[in-house]
Amino acid sequence: MSVRYGMISVASITDRFMHAVLENGDVITAVASRSLTKAKQKADQYGIKRAYSSYEDVYRDNDVDIVYIAVNNANHSREVKRALQHGKHVLCEKPIALCAEDAEELFTYARKQGLFLMEAQKSLFLPVTQVVRTHIQKQTLGRLHQIEMSASFPNPTAAWMHDPAQGGVVYGSASYTIEYLDYLLAPKQIHTSPMGTKEAGGACDRISMNFLFDDILVNSRISMNGPTQHHAIFYFEKGYIHVPDYWKAREYTLVKGKDHQRFTFPCLYEMKYEAAHVRECLKNGWQESPIMPANRSIRCCSIVDNIMQQLEQVNREEGR
Amino acid sequence: MSVRYGMISVASITDRFMHAVLENGDVITAVASRSLTKAKQKADQYGIKRAYSSYEDVYRDNDVDIVYIAVNNANHSREVKRALQHGKHVLCEKPIALCAEDAEELFTYARKQGLFLMEAQKSLFLPVTQVVRTHIQKQTLGRLHQIEMSASFPNPTAAWMHDPAQGGVVYGSASYTIEYLDYLLAPKQIHTSPMGTKEAGGACDRISMNFLFDDILVNSRISMNGPTQHHAIFYFEKGYIHVPDYWKAREYTLVKGKDHQRFTFPCLYEMKYEAAHVRECLKNGWQESPIMPANRSIRCCSIVDNIMQQLEQVNREEGR
Repeated sequence: MSVRYGMISVASITDRFMHAVLENGDVITAVASRSLTKAKQKADQYGIKRAYSSYEDVYRDNDVDIVYIAVNNANHSREVKRALQHGKHVLCEKPIALCAEDAEELFTYARKQGLFLMEAQKSLFLPVTQVVRTHIQKQTLGRLHQIEMSASFPNPTAAWMHDPAQGGVVYGSASYTIEYLDYLLAPKQIHTSPMGTKEAGGACDRISMNFLFDDILVNSRISMNGPTQHHAIFYFEKGYIHVPDYWKAREYTLVKGKDHQRFTFPCLYEMKYEAAHVRECLKNGWQESPIMPANRSIRCCSIVDNIMQQLEQVNREEGR
Repeated sequence: MSVRYGMISVASITDRFMHAVLENGDVITAVASRSLTKAKQKADQYGIKRAYSSYEDVYRDNDVDIVYIAVNNANHSREVKRALQHGKHVLCEKPIALCAEDAEELFTYARKQGLFLMEAQKSLFLPVTQVVRTHIQKQTLGRLHQIEMSASFPNPTAAWMHDPAQGGVVYGSASYTIEYLDYLLAPKQIHTSPMGTKEAGGACDRISMNFLFDDILVNSRISMNGPTQHHAIFYFEKGYIHVPDYWKAREYTLVKGKDHQRFTFPCLYEMKYEAAHVRECLKNGWQESPIMPANRSIRCCSIVDNIMQQLEQVNREEGR
C-alpha cells in the first residue's frame, strides 16, 4: 500500500522530499502554495494531480493520507494543528514548534485525534547513523568520550531566517545536533551551555553549543556567516569516527591510529529512509514513531528554549 | 654572543628545548635534577659541563645567564622567584603561575630586579603563526568569524598531571589556546564559557571552552581521555585555514571552495624560534618580550582562574 502525500508549501526542501517519496514508490496527491502558479509548476514537474493555492484545500482532500509541512518555522504549529483538525496524519519539518509547550500541545492533540505526528528529523533514519549507534553501543573503539560537530549554512536568502523569533542558526539547525545525539546516546541528563552572536537584525548567526549528554562532552557549532567544515566526529578511547555531512550522511571513516577505513552508503535522496519509516508507521497504525517519538521532539524544543534563554541572559548581563 | 642556559629539571620537554638551544648556537652550561644520576645523564648526552642535584646550584652558577624552568606546574612560581632572587633571567614553561595574582607578583619582581622574565609559549614564534596573523589582519579571505581548536594529550603518566590543584587539561594546556589567540586577535574583550568533566581524582580530564574574542566565536577542546584531531581551523567569510598541531605547527592549508593549498615550514625543533626570540630580547637588554609580554601571561592566568571557577560553580550547582 502506497502512502498518499499532500505537500504544504513548495519551499526548496520539498523538492528533495518529493523525490524521496517518489523513489520510495509512494504518491503525492496534492501540492499547495500561496501562489497557484508555483503550485501548478511543482504539480507539472512531479506529475501531481492537484495544485491548490490554499493549504486548507490539501487538508480537505480525501485522497491525502498525510501532509508534509514545510512552511516557515513560525507557522509550523499552526499548520500542524489545522491538518490534525481535518483528520490528516502529519510529518512536519524541524523544528516542529518554537517552544516545548507548543510541541507538547501538538502531540497531545494528535494523540486525542488518533493521528500520526512526527517531526522530520531525517538524520536518525540514515544507514550511517545506525552503524555509528552500533559502534557506540558495542564500544568497538572503547568508550565514547567526546563529540565534535560543525556545520554552516551561509547567507540564507529566506527572509524569515533573519527573524530572531523563528530564524537564525538555533531555531534553524540546533535540532540536527540535539535529536541526533539524543537518539544515538539515549542520555538520562543533558546539560547545555551555549555561546553565540547575533546579526544586526537580532537573529543568532553563529552558535557554539557545549553539552554534556550524561558524561559525554559535546561541542556543536553552526554558522550562517561563511563556509566551515561539515561533519560530526565521535572520539573514543581507541580512535574516532568521522561522519561528513552528519545530517545527510552517505559515508563515514573509522580511524584507529594510522588506519583509516572509509565506508560508503550511496543514495540519491537521503530523505527516502525517513519516508520509508513514515510508511512503516502508517502501515502499522502507529501514532508515534518509535525512532522519533513525541518525547524526543519535546525534549529538543525544551533544550532550544533553554539555549535561547541562556543567550538572552548573557546579552542582558553584558548590555548587548 | 651566545646565551648560556641553565636547565631546571630534566622533564621530557627539556630534551626538545635543549636540542632547539643547541641548534640555535646557544650554550647549556648547567643542568639540575633532584636526581644527580639523571642530571649527569643529560649532561653527558648534551655535552653540558655541570650537573647538579640542586636547582639552587644552577641559580648560583656565574656562567649561567638565563634559566629554563620546566618543573611541575605547582612549583613554577617558587622556582621563578628563586631564580630572580639570584639575579638570573628566566624562561618558564607555561603556565607561569596557577593564578593571576602570582603571575603579576612574579613580573613585578622581575621588573624590580631588572631581569628578563618570559612564559615559554612557543606557538607565538612559529612561522606558521606569523602567516596566519597576516591573513587575519589583511583579511585575505574576508573577515574571520569563527575558530575551532582540538587537541588531546592522552593518558599522561606524570602523577602531578592528575592533581586537581595543578594538573588536568586546563592548567596543562588552556594557555596554548588563550595566549595564541590573544596574540593573533589582539582582542579588547574576552568572554569565556567552559564545560568540562573531571576524572576520579578530581583533575579536569576533558574541556570544551567557548570564547568570544571580541566578536570572533571560538571553541577549543582539550582531552586527556583518548586520541582526537589536533588542529586549529580559522573560518573566514570566503574560506578557511587549517593548521595541524597548532602549538608546534610546521604547515597550514588554505581552503577556498574546492581549492586546497598546502604550505610547509619544515624544522626539526620548533622551540628554536622561541629560543631565537629569547636571545634577541637578551641581546637588546629587554626585560619583557614584545611578543609574549607580562600582560599576556597575566591575562591568560586570569582567564584560567575564571574557567576553574566556572567549572567549580557548575559542579556545586549540580552537586557533583
